[in-house]
Amino acid sequence: MSIRYKMTMAYDGHLFHGFQTQRNQRTVQGTVEAALTKMTKGKEVIVQGSGRTDAGVHALGQVIHFDYPGNIIPPKRMLFALNSMMPLDIVFRKSEIVNKNFHVRYSTTGKWYRYRVSLDKFTNPFKRFYTGHYPYPVDVSKMQRAAQDLLGTHDFTSFAASGGQIKNKIRTMYYVNVQEDKKENEVIFDFICSGFLYNMVRILVAMLLEIGNGKRPINDVPRIIKAKNRQEVRETAQANGLFLYHVFYEDIPKKHRQDLDL
Amino acid sequence: MSIRYKMTMAYDGHLFHGFQTQRNQRTVQGTVEAALTKMTKGKEVIVQGSGRTDAGVHALGQVIHFDYPGNIIPPKRMLFALNSMMPLDIVFRKSEIVNKNFHVRYSTTGKWYRYRVSLDKFTNPFKRFYTGHYPYPVDVSKMQRAAQDLLGTHDFTSFAASGGQIKNKIRTMYYVNVQEDKKENEVIFDFICSGFLYNMVRILVAMLLEIGNGKRPINDVPRIIKAKNRQEVRETAQANGLFLYHVFYEDIPKKHRQDLDL
Repeated sequence: MSIRYKMTMAYDGHLFHGFQTQRNQRTVQGTVEAALTKMTKGKEVIVQGSGRTDAGVHALGQVIHFDYPGNIIPPKRMLFALNSMMPLDIVFRKSEIVNKNFHVRYSTTGKWYRYRVSLDKFTNPFKRFYTGHYPYPVDVSKMQRAAQDLLGTHDFTSFAASGGQIKNKIRTMYYVNVQEDKKENEVIFDFICSGFLYNMVRILVAMLLEIGNGKRPINDVPRIIKAKNRQEVRETAQANGLFLYHVFYEDIPKKHRQDLDL
Repeated sequence: MSIRYKMTMAYDGHLFHGFQTQRNQRTVQGTVEAALTKMTKGKEVIVQGSGRTDAGVHALGQVIHFDYPGNIIPPKRMLFALNSMMPLDIVFRKSEIVNKNFHVRYSTTGKWYRYRVSLDKFTNPFKRFYTGHYPYPVDVSKMQRAAQDLLGTHDFTSFAASGGQIKNKIRTMYYVNVQEDKKENEVIFDFICSGFLYNMVRILVAMLLEIGNGKRPINDVPRIIKAKNRQEVRETAQANGLFLYHVFYEDIPKKHRQDLDL
């Protein structure tokens, strides 16, 4: 007998070699599995993540599930127990017991990623692990307009780095927002999509920054999508600025289905 | 011949062994001096700081001066040159040429330190290097009221850790503020004083938290000041949460001389 727990977590990715367990590397999955194995006094517990964030990528709302053997531990107690065993760069926010037909990867309806870019000439020391860096002039309104062309259902092959294992690259982009934080001298990009391909957000951000900087025309997005060719956008924004913000398991709320009749 | 430069800088202290040069340790002063020595092609340049922040302590407005040998470099160019040579955890904000009777330590009229405390039960991973941590209930209004007793000119011996070399421990506290940031679940402490003794802010914060938590009476401050005994407050808040916020070289502005006719 075992109980399935769904847990929501935040982590600072800058000292992890990504989410997924790798031999002899410090990873998020490996850290959580080690704690669970201690709790079970040696029984192996496999952690499933909603997605594998890369080295340096952060999470505010990553979701995992695992099957915990033995007696039921109340969700609040599980939350406390795991938090007590976590290093300071991981924190669990929420804990639930779920049905075994819930799967953290297969049950998602979409994900929300946020990307922060600092426009400072020289990086703010307190942001160096938490923002990408683009010390060039950008026209935010150009990026806002170009981003609208990403909305809807498309084959996103042009925005998928090689290395992904998924063949079907058709996804639905529900929501894109580009906003300037003048006080922080940052640009914040938000993307809600039915699913993301490998490095997709970082490639999208690199492309939008080129449009904002005038290196690409504002109407370049439909052409790039149509080309289905990764060579169209060669840049990839740094991992540093990327946050897995939220994972949806319910219908994507109306307010996050921008101008779409989906 | 040499030119004296006054420069304002920010740094993330968490990977430095403090400000002051130490053999075989990564320090702020050592990092800046190494860059200047490169610029002079080997001539030693000594950097003077307004104060020596401890390991883990951050700065938003640290001020340094140094005498640069040879021809005048315009301040903007000096700013750019030094920033280009700095690691990502240091940034220079401002550069000025000053008269040789300006001294970054002897010319100050006061300093402003800020201390951030997270009240979260488990530390937010993104704040672990930038806040102290006090996961206990606190009554902010009690701390606000008690803090007022620090204002004015006092012998602050009770709040000075051993290790300081200065005998005269009389200072003038111009401004104290304790505020709650409910959104961040933090308490922010601000202190503007004519000068700070060794670990003084961290000891003051530890004492105020004890008052906020009800471990000490709200009117304990005058008694502790009068005792002139470091043993009165045994706790010292962590270095992590402390920021050197601003150094004053002009008269302390009226708005920062709280309820005082000084």
